[in-house]
Amino acid sequence: MFKLYYAPGTCALASHIALAEAGAPYTTEKVDFKTNQQNSPEYLGINPKGRVPSLVTDRGILTETPAMLAFIAQSFPQAKLAPLDDAFAFAQAQAFNSYLCSTVHVAHAHKGRGYRWATDEASFADMKRMVPKSVGASFALIERKMLRGPWVMGETYTICDPYLFTIAQWLEGDSVDLAALPKVADHRKRMSERPAVRKALAEQQV
Amino acid sequence: MFKLYYAPGTCALASHIALAEAGAPYTTEKVDFKTNQQNSPEYLGINPKGRVPSLVTDRGILTETPAMLAFIAQSFPQAKLAPLDDAFAFAQAQAFNSYLCSTVHVAHAHKGRGYRWATDEASFADMKRMVPKSVGASFALIERKMLRGPWVMGETYTICDPYLFTIAQWLEGDSVDLAALPKVADHRKRMSERPAVRKALAEQQV
Repeated sequence: MFKLYYAPGTCALASHIALAEAGAPYTTEKVDFKTNQQNSPEYLGINPKGRVPSLVTDRGILTETPAMLAFIAQSFPQAKLAPLDDAFAFAQAQAFNSYLCSTVHVAHAHKGRGYRWATDEASFADMKRMVPKSVGASFALIERKMLRGPWVMGETYTICDPYLFTIAQWLEGDSVDLAALPKVADHRKRMSERPAVRKALAEQQV
Repeated sequence: MFKLYYAPGTCALASHIALAEAGAPYTTEKVDFKTNQQNSPEYLGINPKGRVPSLVTDRGILTETPAMLAFIAQSFPQAKLAPLDDAFAFAQAQAFNSYLCSTVHVAHAHKGRGYRWATDEASFADMKRMVPKSVGASFALIERKMLRGPWVMGETYTICDPYLFTIAQWLEGDSVDLAALPKVADHRKRMSERPAVRKALAEQQV
């Protein structure tokens, strides 16, 4: 049995969907960002980074979305969520997820979490103004070069898909024009119709 | 035969060391950041993100350090650079590398690449001032909670080690006090004595 710590609207949704797709046995526990629960002594004992997601397993606790997604795919091979027998194809999937994690999510985070990298209100406002452009440029690259269609890796659904879906949920909030991203928009729509996605969203009461 | 595109002083060193550790057949090609070669039409044809590293393989081109490191480990299993038969241990190694990629490297990048996330000179200066604190906090967590010793994952050398070594090269430039990080300093020293590390550094003429 796995236990996923999540907060609604965060990247934890990607692992939540992957658990549902895999048919994994899991429970979820919400971390309340409004009361700063992610920095409580109890939660820091689970994840000293004070972030979500965290995945409690019978072997110990895992963090970091790309690592968790690969772990779920490897732990439930019958779900075929990653090309586990092809190191190159697996690396391509991992490269996509790494780009989401280190570039796209990071660009988005400058909208509301500028305090991680600066101290002045003027800097926060400057960062916030840049988000439509920086997130938009990342998604333009995804649209043009990375999203093969219908799924990220092509004909086969993988762990890249719930992660892209999760971050694409933020596009309107980041003031990125979805009309310029028809493949991304189509992907988001197709994802939203999957039972596992509906299940995860319902469990997060979104 | 692999071909690694790199620039000296960048995170490409991690994959360079891993290739040398694996005994992989490879050549290297320097990308000249001084002439902005990373954004030349030729290089953008290799990596449309305009970043290093890129790894040319006989199957195609890979990018993103965590994905490349896992690929090298999986492609040369006899080098035992990752716990390939243990999904949980593999995920722990991947989680460490994901943290370096998405949090530690990103914190460091605010010193000189603030233009990715803002436009004003005052914001760049503000970001730059924060780097000793943000990179320092990340490395304090690595020192206290993540680096098991003597190697990142404990007794066994893995793909986490060249990546940590690579980013730890930046500590003095980021004005982080290495005296407060004895395990990290010890790791860096032990890494610098490995033949593969010496080989990679010599090949980059550092």
